Amino acid sequence: MTVRVTVWNEFEHEKSNETVRAIYPDGIHMAIASFLKEHFEVGTATLEQPEHGLTQEVLDNTDVLIWWGHRAHGKVEDAIVERVAAAVQSGMGLIVLHSGHHSKPFKRLLGTTCNLKWREADETESLWVVAPGHPIVEGIGEGFSVPEAEMYGEFFDIPEPDSVIFISRFSKGTEVFRSGVTFTRGLGRIFYFRPGHETYPIYYQPEVQKVITNAVTWAAPTQRHSGFSLDVRNTPLPE
Amino acid sequence: MTVRVTVWNEFEHEKSNETVRAIYPDGIHMAIASFLKEHFEVGTATLEQPEHGLTQEVLDNTDVLIWWGHRAHGKVEDAIVERVAAAVQSGMGLIVLHSGHHSKPFKRLLGTTCNLKWREADETESLWVVAPGHPIVEGIGEGFSVPEAEMYGEFFDIPEPDSVIFISRFSKGTEVFRSGVTFTRGLGRIFYFRPGHETYPIYYQPEVQKVITNAVTWAAPTQRHSGFSLDVRNTPLPE
Amino acid sequence: MTVRVTVWNEFEHEKSNETVRAIYPDGIHMAIASFLKEHFEVGTATLEQPEHGLTQEVLDNTDVLIWWGHRAHGKVEDAIVERVAAAVQSGMGLIVLHSGHHSKPFKRLLGTTCNLKWREADETESLWVVAPGHPIVEGIGEGFSVPEAEMYGEFFDIPEPDSVIFISRFSKGTEVFRSGVTFTRGLGRIFYFRPGHETYPIYYQPEVQKVITNAVTWAAPTQRHSGFSLDVRNTPLPE
Amino acid sequence: MTVRVTVWNEFEHEKSNETVRAIYPDGIHMAIASFLKEHFEVGTATLEQPEHGLTQEVLDNTDVLIWWGHRAHGKVEDAIVERVAAAVQSGMGLIVLHSGHHSKPFKRLLGTTCNLKWREADETESLWVVAPGHPIVEGIGEGFSVPEAEMYGEFFDIPEPDSVIFISRFSKGTEVFRSGVTFTRGLGRIFYFRPGHETYPIYYQPEVQKVITNAVTWAAPTQRHSGFSLDVRNTPLPE
Repeated sequence: MTVRVTVWNEFEHEKSNETVRAIYPDGIHMAIASFLKEHFEVGTATLEQPEHGLTQEVLDNTDVLIWWGHRAHGKVEDAIVERVAAAVQSGMGLIVLHSGHHSKPFKRLLGTTCNLKWREADETESLWVVAPGHPIVEGIGEGFSVPEAEMYGEFFDIPEPDSVIFISRFSKGTEVFRSGVTFTRGLGRIFYFRPGHETYPIYYQPEVQKVITNAVTWAAPTQRHSGFSLDVRNTPLPE
Repeated sequence: MTVRVTVWNEFEHEKSNETVRAIYPDGIHMAIASFLKEHFEVGTATLEQPEHGLTQEVLDNTDVLIWWGHRAHGKVEDAIVERVAAAVQSGMGLIVLHSGHHSKPFKRLLGTTCNLKWREADETESLWVVAPGHPIVEGIGEGFSVPEAEMYGEFFDIPEPDSVIFISRFSKGTEVFRSGVTFTRGLGRIFYFRPGHETYPIYYQPEVQKVITNAVTWAAPTQRHSGFSLDVRNTPLPE
Repeated sequence: MTVRVTVWNEFEHEKSNETVRAIYPDGIHMAIASFLKEHFEVGTATLEQPEHGLTQEVLDNTDVLIWWGHRAHGKVEDAIVERVAAAVQSGMGLIVLHSGHHSKPFKRLLGTTCNLKWREADETESLWVVAPGHPIVEGIGEGFSVPEAEMYGEFFDIPEPDSVIFISRFSKGTEVFRSGVTFTRGLGRIFYFRPGHETYPIYYQPEVQKVITNAVTWAAPTQRHSGFSLDVRNTPLPE
Repeated sequence: MTVRVTVWNEFEHEKSNETVRAIYPDGIHMAIASFLKEHFEVGTATLEQPEHGLTQEVLDNTDVLIWWGHRAHGKVEDAIVERVAAAVQSGMGLIVLHSGHHSKPFKRLLGTTCNLKWREADETESLWVVAPGHPIVEGIGEGFSVPEAEMYGEFFDIPEPDSVIFISRFSKGTEVFRSGVTFTRGLGRIFYFRPGHETYPIYYQPEVQKVITNAVTWAAPTQRHSGFSLDVRNTPLPE
């Protein structure tokens, strides 16, 4: 059964910053959709669309939602955030990329500040696999490098993850970072993956594409339309 | 160093229901405060007080907050919920009792619906210890029974807990329930403990008192006023 | 790619006990192999075979090993136990059924006593799903009942599982039990599943078959023959 | 109640290597015992003693055992390993330091190879706190550096820890390492802490002493002599 993916992007940097537009002329969402289309049924959605492109109908037909946001987190309407959270709880997978660590849906579902340290200094990021049996790292080996990256450093204020998949270090400082982590909320599986700063061509890198592709397969719901109910229920004794 | 506890209670059932008032004439909070006072410095707070009794000053001087709420969850102001959540993230312990599973602070910090099944049928609850090395169950042995209890049943929609401490079953139905579970959010430790329905004298039971007392000691912060910062920070390279 | 399953059974009760033989005339392994064959490539192995049927070649060609043992745990040779443990660490999935909780490979990989309480009293077991988004419970809904079962009760001395999937209670006593739990060791995924006492026809029950089938798919390795190395390695600096 | 600590050291490098002897003239165990004595009742034990200094009586009177071993892992008798494992399962805390990752008791209790990468190149280790609310890092702030250290790198083949407390990186390579991790086995709490290579004066560093001291307090048993039983038990129904 084909997995249906929706790639959401705030789509702002690409319109205002020439460096970013040169890398992602059609937007980060189109670059991500492009490599996912080889395996899945893929749609896109952006902030400027009505309901940010995330109508109830779109979510009802999405198995895995990918989220890229950065400077426009505050523009995402709370009603849409609640709709996304409810979809995850009922089984939709969610993959949050890079600066999406501060997006409203991620903070809403995790319950923490999701704060971290950061620095832009053109550093090489080394990502090491620390859960080699996990389906998300199939084909990745021991890890890989991103030649130029923004730095994110601990303490990353997230709940204890279900699994820590990747840990990163950066070439110019002393920081480390849990750069790939999973969570469950209700029936939904969540993967946060750090790479993807807008000023570097990171989503064209084969290892990054492989991880995101694996993550879509992993996050696709097994129970979503099964009728499993999360409702509060009074359950009387049998008479 | 004495642990400072604040016991919060919505304090509504006790004023409107004679059965409850007969059991807890001064309110559930006073019954809980009473046994905790033997070990800790204890204050109380209720919904009807200004800022629900949870001013910033009160929270700044609280090491562990205990929460009992049920029918008035919706009356708790969102600003106070955010204040409680921020205090937990910065290290305050939080113990959520019984129907507090649906309280705003608990749902805010966990990110799930916290829904469950329930039934009022005067059942005996058997609580079994499944983490016997945990400090919360010191002195509890293999478990204990609550003679008359409301039933709560799975699926309990919470994130995978850090530790499952107790699992319960009930005498008249077939349900089971994770009745004691821990979480971490930021620097703060959270314990949810199921017993405590208002129509039964559960908070007078020695085992229940022992668990809550142990949990206060466990949840008291070790890092709260240490200056550890959860703030977002740009951290430039050394020159 | 077809998943290759080996079903291992000590195959003793069936030869000495008429009740058991009447239920499983060809052995428990053949009953399990029978329903798995609809989905996977399935072989069997038993204690009495040379090397207990688990030669290095058999394990090298096994994606998921299923283990049923009870009264003959002590007859399993330590060299074979080490071979099974090494295969799991390098990625082979392992599904341990019922009284296999006390098998040598399970205790070797978990590091605990795996002790528990037990009683034979023809009780109905109610298994409740507490991780509804997990692939192992796809199609299972909220849980199911086994009409007649042996009782297993907590405290079950296992390490904190990666996920608790099922919790059981039993109709005649007050016990509860974590009846479906997962672990990871090296690259290998492990699932322990409680149902399956030899004197009841439990492996003919559709829900039990569905869970075991799901578990095989979940436990099948994604990284096994990838060349990912668990070896100790000295890694000099680049010159 | 005073916590009783036993510091175990294989005590071989100090006798054969002048560099090590210059740093730890009385042995690593005496250096560790020295700072712990300010807070706890401390004894020591070494490989060459009868039963490696770990008689049943010694273990029965030990709340927390600290383990330092490296080149003599193979000389530790299996019967003593089983005795240590049983003591941990019944509640004794265990703190495993540095190259103790390959010690028999640690591998016995974890069930994995505990393999890792390593390099001796006089690197600075930066240890970052990733569980700031944990009692083990009280007073440690965001982390600290060890000026000269051996490198340990991922993949570290351990089960998913209960908590990851520290993550390290090293100044000369690209590796990262989970350098402080906790586990539970039976009633016993286990902490693995990476620092401590014998050719550097690491155990004189105040931050390292503070972490080990905190860990002793954390690992001290709450249930050990409580009569909580891990035995297999047949539990008949009440008549």
